[in-house]
Amino acid sequence: MPNKSKIYMQKAIDLSIESVKNGGGPFGAVIVKNGEVIAQASNSVTQTNDPTAHAEVNAIRKATAKLKNFNLADCEIYSSCEPCPMCLGAIYWAGIGKLYFANNKTDAKDIGFDDSFIYEEIATPYAQRKVVTEQMMRPEAIKAFQMWNEKEDKIEY
Amino acid sequence: MPNKSKIYMQKAIDLSIESVKNGGGPFGAVIVKNGEVIAQASNSVTQTNDPTAHAEVNAIRKATAKLKNFNLADCEIYSSCEPCPMCLGAIYWAGIGKLYFANNKTDAKDIGFDDSFIYEEIATPYAQRKVVTEQMMRPEAIKAFQMWNEKEDKIEY
Repeated sequence: MPNKSKIYMQKAIDLSIESVKNGGGPFGAVIVKNGEVIAQASNSVTQTNDPTAHAEVNAIRKATAKLKNFNLADCEIYSSCEPCPMCLGAIYWAGIGKLYFANNKTDAKDIGFDDSFIYEEIATPYAQRKVVTEQMMRPEAIKAFQMWNEKEDKIEY
Repeated sequence: MPNKSKIYMQKAIDLSIESVKNGGGPFGAVIVKNGEVIAQASNSVTQTNDPTAHAEVNAIRKATAKLKNFNLADCEIYSSCEPCPMCLGAIYWAGIGKLYFANNKTDAKDIGFDDSFIYEEIATPYAQRKVVTEQMMRPEAIKAFQMWNEKEDKIEY
């Protein structure tokens, strides 16, 4: 664990507490690169009417905007709570190599933020999911993938 | 499947094809409410330096901004490709009840977009994940959750 880990996590926790005071969800996150805090955010789902605006997603969007790079290699994320599957996905796509969290998903469930439905759905074959999920029109859609495959100047990510 | 499903999915596919032509990832998504397209988007990860800017997340953010509501109940999402775990999480948090997709995750893997690492990591206890993951400072962090629990005028989501 980096030397200043407790300082970074305390910042994430402070953001989560401020967020409750400001009417937002009780979550905060901080992103650190080379010992420097490059982004910090709290959950803003209800203030911005954006269900994807979890603290971790907000912090990732701020960090990548700041670095002008969609990859956050060599960064660490400190989250005041164990990330939900959406945020875990965002952390992995961003290429963040280290994750520290404080409250866990059971703590979150105890105050009404239950992501177990998402974990269960993700682990279920799509045809059996509670959210109706159907595949259609693959033959038409595969054209875009073929175009991507053949494109020589594409920016891979 | 709704009457006009093929029209909506063709729109998502058209967006994925246009996206490749414009230098973006080969993905498009459309959100429909009561038979009306309320949002459409393509992947813009590389153009906006935002690793969370998958077509589905972009479409959800547009739809909720348009409706001024963080919940997309009674909406359907048409995605040109099977959503990754991040996008599935976003779909569930948004309360979208129906998902239609065209290309599947194997098709995506075949052209370099492999989300199997994320599925594997999500299914692995955090202490055993490849991305270093540690819990710390729960006693300090739980305070925000207690504040949330006791807050009488909170906006739940």
